Amino acid sequence: MNTILPSYVNGQWWTPALREAQDEIDGAEVRDASTGEVVTRVSTEGLDLGAALDYARTVGQASLGELTFHQRAVLLKQMALALTERKAELYELSARTGATKQDSWVDIDGGIGVLFTYSSKGRREMPNSKVYVDGAVEQLSKDGSFLGRHIYTRLPGVAVQINAFNFPVWGSLEKFAPAFLAGVPTLVKPATPTGYLAEAFVRILVESGLLPEGSLQLVSGSVPTLFDHLRLGDLVAFTGSASTAEKLRSHDSVQTGGVRFTSETDSINASVLGTDAVAGTPEFDAYVKQLVAEMTTKAGQKCTAIRRAIVPEASVDAVIDAVRARIAERVVLGDPRAEGVTMGPLASIAQRDEVLRQVGRLEAGGGELVIGSTDAPAVTLADGATGEASDGAFVAPMLLRFADASSAALHEVEAFGPVSSILGYDTTAEAAALVARGGGSLVTSVATHDPEVAIALATGMAAYNGRVLFLDRDDARSSTGHGSPLPNLVHGGPGRAGGGEELGGIRAVLHHMQRTAVQGSPEMLTALTGVWHAGASSQPGGEHPFRKSLAELKIGDQVVSASRTVTLEDIETFAQFTGDTFYAHMDEAAASANPFFPGRVAHGYLLVSWAAGLFVDAAPGPVLANSGLENLRFVTPVSPGDSIRVELTAKQITPRETDEYGEVRWDAVLRNQNDELVASYDVLTLVAKELEPAESPTS
Amino acid sequence: MNTILPSYVNGQWWTPALREAQDEIDGAEVRDASTGEVVTRVSTEGLDLGAALDYARTVGQASLGELTFHQRAVLLKQMALALTERKAELYELSARTGATKQDSWVDIDGGIGVLFTYSSKGRREMPNSKVYVDGAVEQLSKDGSFLGRHIYTRLPGVAVQINAFNFPVWGSLEKFAPAFLAGVPTLVKPATPTGYLAEAFVRILVESGLLPEGSLQLVSGSVPTLFDHLRLGDLVAFTGSASTAEKLRSHDSVQTGGVRFTSETDSINASVLGTDAVAGTPEFDAYVKQLVAEMTTKAGQKCTAIRRAIVPEASVDAVIDAVRARIAERVVLGDPRAEGVTMGPLASIAQRDEVLRQVGRLEAGGGELVIGSTDAPAVTLADGATGEASDGAFVAPMLLRFADASSAALHEVEAFGPVSSILGYDTTAEAAALVARGGGSLVTSVATHDPEVAIALATGMAAYNGRVLFLDRDDARSSTGHGSPLPNLVHGGPGRAGGGEELGGIRAVLHHMQRTAVQGSPEMLTALTGVWHAGASSQPGGEHPFRKSLAELKIGDQVVSASRTVTLEDIETFAQFTGDTFYAHMDEAAASANPFFPGRVAHGYLLVSWAAGLFVDAAPGPVLANSGLENLRFVTPVSPGDSIRVELTAKQITPRETDEYGEVRWDAVLRNQNDELVASYDVLTLVAKELEPAESPTS
Repeated sequence: MNTILPSYVNGQWWTPALREAQDEIDGAEVRDASTGEVVTRVSTEGLDLGAALDYARTVGQASLGELTFHQRAVLLKQMALALTERKAELYELSARTGATKQDSWVDIDGGIGVLFTYSSKGRREMPNSKVYVDGAVEQLSKDGSFLGRHIYTRLPGVAVQINAFNFPVWGSLEKFAPAFLAGVPTLVKPATPTGYLAEAFVRILVESGLLPEGSLQLVSGSVPTLFDHLRLGDLVAFTGSASTAEKLRSHDSVQTGGVRFTSETDSINASVLGTDAVAGTPEFDAYVKQLVAEMTTKAGQKCTAIRRAIVPEASVDAVIDAVRARIAERVVLGDPRAEGVTMGPLASIAQRDEVLRQVGRLEAGGGELVIGSTDAPAVTLADGATGEASDGAFVAPMLLRFADASSAALHEVEAFGPVSSILGYDTTAEAAALVARGGGSLVTSVATHDPEVAIALATGMAAYNGRVLFLDRDDARSSTGHGSPLPNLVHGGPGRAGGGEELGGIRAVLHHMQRTAVQGSPEMLTALTGVWHAGASSQPGGEHPFRKSLAELKIGDQVVSASRTVTLEDIETFAQFTGDTFYAHMDEAAASANPFFPGRVAHGYLLVSWAAGLFVDAAPGPVLANSGLENLRFVTPVSPGDSIRVELTAKQITPRETDEYGEVRWDAVLRNQNDELVASYDVLTLVAKELEPAESPTS
Repeated sequence: MNTILPSYVNGQWWTPALREAQDEIDGAEVRDASTGEVVTRVSTEGLDLGAALDYARTVGQASLGELTFHQRAVLLKQMALALTERKAELYELSARTGATKQDSWVDIDGGIGVLFTYSSKGRREMPNSKVYVDGAVEQLSKDGSFLGRHIYTRLPGVAVQINAFNFPVWGSLEKFAPAFLAGVPTLVKPATPTGYLAEAFVRILVESGLLPEGSLQLVSGSVPTLFDHLRLGDLVAFTGSASTAEKLRSHDSVQTGGVRFTSETDSINASVLGTDAVAGTPEFDAYVKQLVAEMTTKAGQKCTAIRRAIVPEASVDAVIDAVRARIAERVVLGDPRAEGVTMGPLASIAQRDEVLRQVGRLEAGGGELVIGSTDAPAVTLADGATGEASDGAFVAPMLLRFADASSAALHEVEAFGPVSSILGYDTTAEAAALVARGGGSLVTSVATHDPEVAIALATGMAAYNGRVLFLDRDDARSSTGHGSPLPNLVHGGPGRAGGGEELGGIRAVLHHMQRTAVQGSPEMLTALTGVWHAGASSQPGGEHPFRKSLAELKIGDQVVSASRTVTLEDIETFAQFTGDTFYAHMDEAAASANPFFPGRVAHGYLLVSWAAGLFVDAAPGPVLANSGLENLRFVTPVSPGDSIRVELTAKQITPRETDEYGEVRWDAVLRNQNDELVASYDVLTLVAKELEPAESPTS
């Protein structure tokens, strides 16, 4: 495998070797983290990056543009299945990066899990179309002829994803999935030390045949001129160091060219032990367990790892002792391929040296090493023997104690390895202020069972964090942990953490789209959004829309019902039948005294039940079920003698990609004999895509 | 008035005059736009900007932090009323800036309108608390013990608002309102040429006594060191030129310090005449009318004004002729204080010279002046006479024709005055591409009555625009116009337009807050959000919650109902009563053939009606009305013989600030005899704040 690692651009695999002079290409060497053996080399010498980006903007945009959100979502699931089938290959390569099985699970199965989640969310939370509607209709004129609405349409460029070395699979897929769902082609640039693992998953996806042309490209190697090629409509998601983010962000294409740039940088994350969580409480134990996990998982090479353990002054010693004991009991450092190893090396010798340098800065800033040391540790070798591994990037877990909680180094220096600091605090307000000293973090966790402590801390420091996890006896077992970004929750934080947001379900999809306010007549907004707007033309009369399959039904198809008069007897019958004898329906004097009612009025549920009777077409047909109801508002009360009628209009049609039916949302409006609005709501139904033979007029 | 214009900082009015040497303070002179008379001078010599910012971060944050969203919203309305009462003072000053009555209406009444809208939206669309919950609950563990939710909490710093000279009232208030509602104190820095009008409205607000301490500060004059004082938690909203935005954005406090910076810069907005909108159509007329309005309103000094009229090649001449005729008929250039004047001067001589310089660039880039000229125009003077006004900043409306639609100047040069360009296109795709050539715009308008044309244009260029307006015969009369940002719609655009978003209702409020993902047990999330989460502790039994006023009711108060068995007779009774004889309820064979039902099942509306009967407490009491229902989903069908019961739990309590009642949202869950979920929804009720004497147990 000691060859040049390929890139995948312009629809084909590419290496400098194509120039027939492979031996002359140097390429940067990439080595096994535990043994130092050369795994591969990377080089982009001669790669035409501008052409690759243009390929994405043309071919990639076109192929993704043909698909709806749901169609893209289905492809994501199929990709997840394709990767699952061949994940053994990925695990094998992952071990070479220094990852234990557990680390690899986070990276590989975690990455695949992101695809599954986005596939599911894309189908449940987005329409089966190409435009995403945001928020409610805004009435811009009294007569209803001029409306406003917000829509999201995809960015017209490329999603450039520059990733960190620590999670080559998850880190790529968590950015790829939302970009793909939005319909924006990806160009991914993995970090060199572990790029061979990213290459492997891209290869599986390419070989699966599932990728629409141009939707995913991979550049293995450095891209110094990348930003010169970017322009308005492109976006960059960078993960890595704050200093690199700063350099990239300052490029003209971002500063003035309109390229959307977000970064997610390692931050000085904190974990606070609440004042109530003294030794002996379940929260204390959960706190220590989590701290050790965060120090040692992935050898601490996680941008979300705990760097600052902020604990009540009185509990500092107890926490140190408990952490020391747990490390001694649980942590076996060594080559991940050896039996029993629970913590691997860092990704490279360069990383090891960098971590030791930062530990030096922490010590210079007042930190005292109370657990672990900077000496080369004895480790379990691949063959099971114990010894030093001079070519492996091993570092022992280290905890530094800071007597002075105001030390600048403590809140600013990050050793990107199995290294945390511990510091004491007196009051909860002080603890919150110490969290904020990190200058913006990806995540802070809090171990407390006291809601008051939780509220005080959240009030003081939520705005400095992208995510806050509350750990207590109720969720300690089910918690996914301080260091685990989840696809349904935003990942990113303000300030030092980069200022970006990734994941968070559909939020990340929308980040790849432009929000535009659209103003126009109901007719135009209906055409532009695919959602019927009140005031747009409708098709009343004709065949009842309940007799139409999804294939036949059109937005605007409408039932205008007959009217029906409500009597006092009806109200009493309904009250008796349902048991709902609320005084507003039963007691004239009491109802009249109510500020909203003229006297006894019909039950709201009577009205919507009658409305269903008025609009329904009862015979078997394509409408399969009433699945729900939304946004019901009762506006004008209905008194005995009033009559109601209903207009039911097909508002939104959402065929399911993988079922024989789909959702139809109907706009329901009830009015009384004076044309006053009685109630409005959306009725949700499931409707078959095609007529059954027995229902078909041609059969 | 020829003195130094005061600033309002640290809770008091401030001028350099305090140094007892006012005559020595130079101050920049500000002149009347029509007459050149000196209106005032501005200077910040000796102003301690750092102290003002710290005052906001401490005193301002504290005073706003005591208020809920609704309390802040009520204050906004009161401020709007205070300004309305004294708006004559503002109109008088506004005329000195060159604004006609109509221009002043946009600025002053428009600004006041923003306060009204935010007051209303704040109370209708936000909770009456201090934390805003975003999106749905995310289930993070199978057993429901670990949940995720997104919350917004206010930024802990200052909202610094740097405004343009063209709309000194609206431009300030449209930023102040959302910042205030979020709970973030404002420091506003108006543009010097019209800062005296901003000073005047701030003075009215200060004198009204409505401003919480430190919630609004005003700096009249330049602030060269401002950004050195900013830090994480602060945010800047800049309106002005792209070049100034670029300079500010490059400051370290933004690049690496975590200061949130958005800009809204003048852009090369377009207006497209659809291929269907030929001369003689209502769309053609509406297009021309709007174009002339945009050229001349505020003398074209609007960042949203139309700079590029993109029309079918065959219609170019017709549009030019119609625009020429309408200008001749409608536009009277002169001192806004003179009778009959419909277009005033630019804001200053400097602005006039700059506009003429940019017109020169447009001409050099291929533009031919087909309407108007760069010569000093004859104008109507204040006394009604006609003549030249050499000290006034007058410029005639100008239209330049570009034979070459690909001219770079056409798409890049902005003359910030009554100046537009016209260019022809052949295909709709070409028109969309020409819009995009602007490199990102605040707004594009389209005159078409053809939905296909609208869709094609939107698909090609929506992502290059913050707002798109569709103009046709249906909305021409009710349209608020191409150039009018509205408080309910986002204002801002990608790329050249600055990349920011302002307004858009609550969206702008959230821009002043940090979104944080929160993970924890249902109990913790309930405590942190003020919204009950399923799985958190509840209080069943005891007094029925319908007997409790808002003052007594607690989140988690619960009714657990008895169960009730559904019979086939019940289903038939309900079908007969409502008329809902849908086959799934009436026809065993047909129902069995349905993929979702085991046979005949109860109506969904029967179930929710019965549920109300099961949970209601019927006697008069604090619960006044059922106002609606949300998010109803039917999960498990109910067959004859099944029984249902309901749990109703107080989920969210929203007292109204200005009424004697408020909203209570109840979580309703229906289960069957096997504990399977039958349906879930939210019931909305109106509940009195206090018990009526007759209901009170102590009376």
